[in-house]
Amino acid sequence: MDRRSLIKNAGIAGVLAAGAAPAVHAQQAIRWRLASSFPRSLDIVYGCSELFAKMVKSMSGGKFEISIHSPGELMPAFGVFDGVQSGSVEICHTMGYYFYGKNPAFALSSCVPFGLNSRQMTAWLMHGNGRKLVNEFYAQYGVTSFFGGNTGTQMGGWFRKEIKTPTDFKGLKMRMGGGLIGEVVQKLGAVPQNIPGGEVYTALEKGTIDAAEWVGPYDDQKLGFNRVAPYYYYPGWWEGGPNVDLFVNQKALAALPDEYKTILEAASLYLHTNVQAKYDALNPGALKQLVAAKTKVLPFSQAIMEASYKASMEVFAENDAKSPEWRKIYADMRAFQRDEVLWFRFAEASFDGFMFRQKL
Amino acid sequence: MDRRSLIKNAGIAGVLAAGAAPAVHAQQAIRWRLASSFPRSLDIVYGCSELFAKMVKSMSGGKFEISIHSPGELMPAFGVFDGVQSGSVEICHTMGYYFYGKNPAFALSSCVPFGLNSRQMTAWLMHGNGRKLVNEFYAQYGVTSFFGGNTGTQMGGWFRKEIKTPTDFKGLKMRMGGGLIGEVVQKLGAVPQNIPGGEVYTALEKGTIDAAEWVGPYDDQKLGFNRVAPYYYYPGWWEGGPNVDLFVNQKALAALPDEYKTILEAASLYLHTNVQAKYDALNPGALKQLVAAKTKVLPFSQAIMEASYKASMEVFAENDAKSPEWRKIYADMRAFQRDEVLWFRFAEASFDGFMFRQKL
Repeated sequence: MDRRSLIKNAGIAGVLAAGAAPAVHAQQAIRWRLASSFPRSLDIVYGCSELFAKMVKSMSGGKFEISIHSPGELMPAFGVFDGVQSGSVEICHTMGYYFYGKNPAFALSSCVPFGLNSRQMTAWLMHGNGRKLVNEFYAQYGVTSFFGGNTGTQMGGWFRKEIKTPTDFKGLKMRMGGGLIGEVVQKLGAVPQNIPGGEVYTALEKGTIDAAEWVGPYDDQKLGFNRVAPYYYYPGWWEGGPNVDLFVNQKALAALPDEYKTILEAASLYLHTNVQAKYDALNPGALKQLVAAKTKVLPFSQAIMEASYKASMEVFAENDAKSPEWRKIYADMRAFQRDEVLWFRFAEASFDGFMFRQKL
Repeated sequence: MDRRSLIKNAGIAGVLAAGAAPAVHAQQAIRWRLASSFPRSLDIVYGCSELFAKMVKSMSGGKFEISIHSPGELMPAFGVFDGVQSGSVEICHTMGYYFYGKNPAFALSSCVPFGLNSRQMTAWLMHGNGRKLVNEFYAQYGVTSFFGGNTGTQMGGWFRKEIKTPTDFKGLKMRMGGGLIGEVVQKLGAVPQNIPGGEVYTALEKGTIDAAEWVGPYDDQKLGFNRVAPYYYYPGWWEGGPNVDLFVNQKALAALPDEYKTILEAASLYLHTNVQAKYDALNPGALKQLVAAKTKVLPFSQAIMEASYKASMEVFAENDAKSPEWRKIYADMRAFQRDEVLWFRFAEASFDGFMFRQKL
């Protein structure tokens, strides 16, 4: 019911008698469906999307409800973007880089190898040109992206054998998330495997794959990878600060009353901060337990890091040639990163570095 | 107007005639006043508090309004906590550590020297015991604390002369923010000065003080400190991840309809993330300009860092003996920090460290 029909139906006297006329949109009951790419077992990311829906409902006095659906319920994990684009669901919770096959620029709202860390990514999106640029790109799909979380720098994953030099990647069958990362490790000679999370353990146990990257200590421990692969490498140089996306159908967004638009935006920031804070709070305990259970936690060698960096830059140059959208957005992200990395060396890194050396 | 009086005044028929009865609390017009401790010149922190009020207003359909008042308008910068406690304003935007004189535990919702960095502080408050513990403490003042921003690790400040060893602090008149930091630098032999931001430039120019710490490149550059003190040290070991507080009067909070309580919480997270992101986005450019203007950016020596760390631990031990609230909350914060520092060494620090060494 809009304001005009309300007045028409009730008569102006009726409205006035009921006190100050309430904003009519505050009376609209709105129901959205959110399709998640994340299984319930990723309880931080999935759980925080439930919290997001709870916040939206509470802020709207119960009138704006978003139901959360895990992969397979409404559509497959990687069908969620199409679902939002077509309007079969209004919103999804996913990673842009899952859809790299459509256009390399999809990676840029998530992360690129050797890209921005978590704080830098949030800063670029929020107070650099990031959000504006990625949403100009997503507009061609009728979609708008909001903040949906960050895991912080991920671990490099689980390996059945020790990996000492770049040549150890040759022929390595490795489960990797996202097409961009796959292209990079292919340049190192690895054979990227696209295996759903639930099947990785068995594949690693049977030796169908030699290595698998997932997220970090908290999520990885639950899947039990440490029981089938002894070597746990760091850092996940391909995900230095992976940003999670909430993609919203533009027509559904435009149809929202103004206060619900703001409620959606504020709740997305609440979700964003909660995901990062929860990973930061829960990863340390899991790491300690993994180490106590004899996991060998090792850094990638400098040679591996350098070869991976070189391979990444090659893929980026190929993308520059392939996708004008990638070229435009990536150039801006890189310029921002140059300044961020310069600045973070000073106060942040010297403070953290000193603390690392203390016996707390 | 509450639900009962609305029905009484309009008659139940009038309410029904106006369509589905709106939640009555959604009609309440609520006006709060926010007293800020921050001058308008700190345009990130102050500006984001205006953004916070804008979000609250928009989410409530214009019905929950918070006006923002700079220091001196309603009360002095350091009178804002008392203002909230007494209920003369409903909310203030400030740093807990300004009120260290009341009880050392006030520092623990902001930061302590060699404490948690920005992400760790957010994690402790949100998913550790932090928020619960600090709000148990603030409850004795009838006050509840919400997130209000973080600057990230601050710079160590501006010095007229080079500072090479801990003994160079002897007799040094230094403008410091907050009582806890003052106690620590006194142990090093410095003479902490409490000077409002607006007077620091002149004091430094005239030599009334020898050094001054403020925030970081973006804020410091605007005050022109580089023109009167050539040496800019880092890191600000006393503010590794200073959290800004929004303190709310508990009675005013309890009187809010449920959806406005949630709106307040979500808007506080929006404010929190914006402050950090904006500092992260704007500090690098300011640092480059300061360096171009011949500022000498130097790290505190290892000997100074170690002497400062030792002095801090002494002050913490004194606080343990003085304040049971400090002892309880600080012990929890420290245990959390021990785990965080362990974990951040792995993925985060090795990723950032590698990026620092690249020519981007």
